Amino acid sequence: MQPEPDIREVLERKKGRRTSYGDYDFVRLMDEFRGLPRGTALFDHGKVYGYPRIGRFLTLQQGLTGHFDGPVWAEEKVDGYNVRIFRVADRLLALSRGGFVCPFTTDRLPDLLDPAVFEDHPDLVVCAEVAGPQTPYMEGSPPFVKEDVELFVFDLMRWDRSGFLPQQQKHRLVERYDLPTVGMYGLYDHHDLPAIQQLLVRLNEEGREGVVFKEEAGDGHRVKYVTSHSSVADIRVTAYNILDLPPEYFTNRILRLALFLEEQGLEAAGKLNHDLGEAFLDGLMDAIRQYEAEQKVYRTFTCRFREKANAERLMEHLEGTAGHQVQIRRRDLRQEGKYWVLEFDRVYPGMNGLLSHLLSGGLVFD
Amino acid sequence: MQPEPDIREVLERKKGRRTSYGDYDFVRLMDEFRGLPRGTALFDHGKVYGYPRIGRFLTLQQGLTGHFDGPVWAEEKVDGYNVRIFRVADRLLALSRGGFVCPFTTDRLPDLLDPAVFEDHPDLVVCAEVAGPQTPYMEGSPPFVKEDVELFVFDLMRWDRSGFLPQQQKHRLVERYDLPTVGMYGLYDHHDLPAIQQLLVRLNEEGREGVVFKEEAGDGHRVKYVTSHSSVADIRVTAYNILDLPPEYFTNRILRLALFLEEQGLEAAGKLNHDLGEAFLDGLMDAIRQYEAEQKVYRTFTCRFREKANAERLMEHLEGTAGHQVQIRRRDLRQEGKYWVLEFDRVYPGMNGLLSHLLSGGLVFD
Repeated sequence: MQPEPDIREVLERKKGRRTSYGDYDFVRLMDEFRGLPRGTALFDHGKVYGYPRIGRFLTLQQGLTGHFDGPVWAEEKVDGYNVRIFRVADRLLALSRGGFVCPFTTDRLPDLLDPAVFEDHPDLVVCAEVAGPQTPYMEGSPPFVKEDVELFVFDLMRWDRSGFLPQQQKHRLVERYDLPTVGMYGLYDHHDLPAIQQLLVRLNEEGREGVVFKEEAGDGHRVKYVTSHSSVADIRVTAYNILDLPPEYFTNRILRLALFLEEQGLEAAGKLNHDLGEAFLDGLMDAIRQYEAEQKVYRTFTCRFREKANAERLMEHLEGTAGHQVQIRRRDLRQEGKYWVLEFDRVYPGMNGLLSHLLSGGLVFD
Repeated sequence: MQPEPDIREVLERKKGRRTSYGDYDFVRLMDEFRGLPRGTALFDHGKVYGYPRIGRFLTLQQGLTGHFDGPVWAEEKVDGYNVRIFRVADRLLALSRGGFVCPFTTDRLPDLLDPAVFEDHPDLVVCAEVAGPQTPYMEGSPPFVKEDVELFVFDLMRWDRSGFLPQQQKHRLVERYDLPTVGMYGLYDHHDLPAIQQLLVRLNEEGREGVVFKEEAGDGHRVKYVTSHSSVADIRVTAYNILDLPPEYFTNRILRLALFLEEQGLEAAGKLNHDLGEAFLDGLMDAIRQYEAEQKVYRTFTCRFREKANAERLMEHLEGTAGHQVQIRRRDLRQEGKYWVLEFDRVYPGMNGLLSHLLSGGLVFD
């Protein structure tokens, strides 16, 4: 096996880019490279591994028996964005999946997580999902986060080590430091389909996204499986943007629903048919009405910061990475109590252009 | 204005290809070229113009007022395939949109159309839709064609002349020779939205595809507008093939439905939500079940011929033009009474591959 690459080699091979945040400089890995996941952050004194890609199966029974040899832990999959939190030179930073320091999460860490765990375990890397109605990234929110954002720990790693801490060790640290976590539903026999199905039915009814299964043995192989609610909710929240998202986004989710129905039986079909159609049509009609009222299709994001400078950093980051399918439009940055409240829009030019053409009676040739 | 190109120029510029059918040789135009539409057939002694592309509007009111200055004829848009029928050296041929001689339609012309009109008008080109449950091309059928195929005339042209015969002249010939036609709904004031909407509500309830509006004045400018029933039916019949069709196929139709709802009011929303979701999920579940039963996703087509040789010609044509997203599999060619009945499958490898992977619990990374 080849040794892992060092910073010099990563830069020479153009697999990473120098990145800085305040006083901190590191190299962020833009693609997987010789065993290091995309998003790995290479500091001079060590590295924080990227969070690996987790596969998903779309058929529960075949997936469970095909991918696991023994018992599996079932943990909630929360619909938010993934961060890795760690300490460097006495300060906590939060990295996004791609290896950028997230100015929003980093700013809000004091509200989200008790730092005590890092006092005793300075080399800990906390892997968590941040979710809620007031993130700068997500348009939907899990129903159980009513305001602002919350953080849900699901894995622990250590500096300079690939792989995760074993589940038992994670549970001990979670309990001892009272870390907020995703739902931990315990250990299941991977052959006990009825019990697992029952769990998923409950999660579906509660509007939760799904489950990550983690094998107890070996290196804790992980696979995810989502509820039908999650597929419909994704479509509902993004239908207004149907022209600018990759078409697989939608076809994948429709396929998930069909496989779900095929496996779970058809009692659910009537409601699911309605919900799927409604997700598309309500979402698109929101866009049409917004265009008719304001001649623009956009979504407004609101999030609060402890420090004004971090709101500015976030805006710079978003504006710098926006791409041509979305425009960032600043609305407001104001002080409210101890927070700075940032408001900005994501504007979708593709949808604007087409709706402008179609609503004025323009022709399409197809 | 540049003169229209001749055969020599079309071939030199690689815009057309030599094509033959039995004793007949011509050059078929593969793309629009200096005023000649794609699908134009250039014979040595003259040419049959391609059927022009007809635009569609998605908002009725804005479309009607934006595209027409005076009264419009409303004619039914039938969901079939477009042919142009004409006489050459005492024999009738039917050209497909792309300018191929269609062996199926050509074979069946004696069943579909009284040739008397060509005795009196040898330079006539009859533009028609062929539809029904037994065509070699279409997977759906209009509800009013219960078996085999029928032909519906909607326009008349002449050899060597671009443009259509005026409506009055078309109506006279249709009546005199008793030609089968699409529904002809008469002349409408293009400002009379309620009357036109009422017509479309009726067509929608009857499960018809929509309307082609043809301006009375000038060169009879044409625009099409389809019912919500048509968009849902298209999705229902092709959902099993969701991976191999261009994604715009689906997004366009969903957008049509949303604009339809926005314009027509929301009483229809509940039913349409259900129908849209059902179209996707029923279509995909058909594919899943077919795969589970037979390890293949395919559709069987049946059509009858008067002459066995024409069935063979069709199969050669389909096999020669199939492309990699579909495979043609012959099933049967048998004599029944005076007809030869051809059965063949279109097999969809993309869907087969994915379902094989997913149904055995395979992972996707997205």
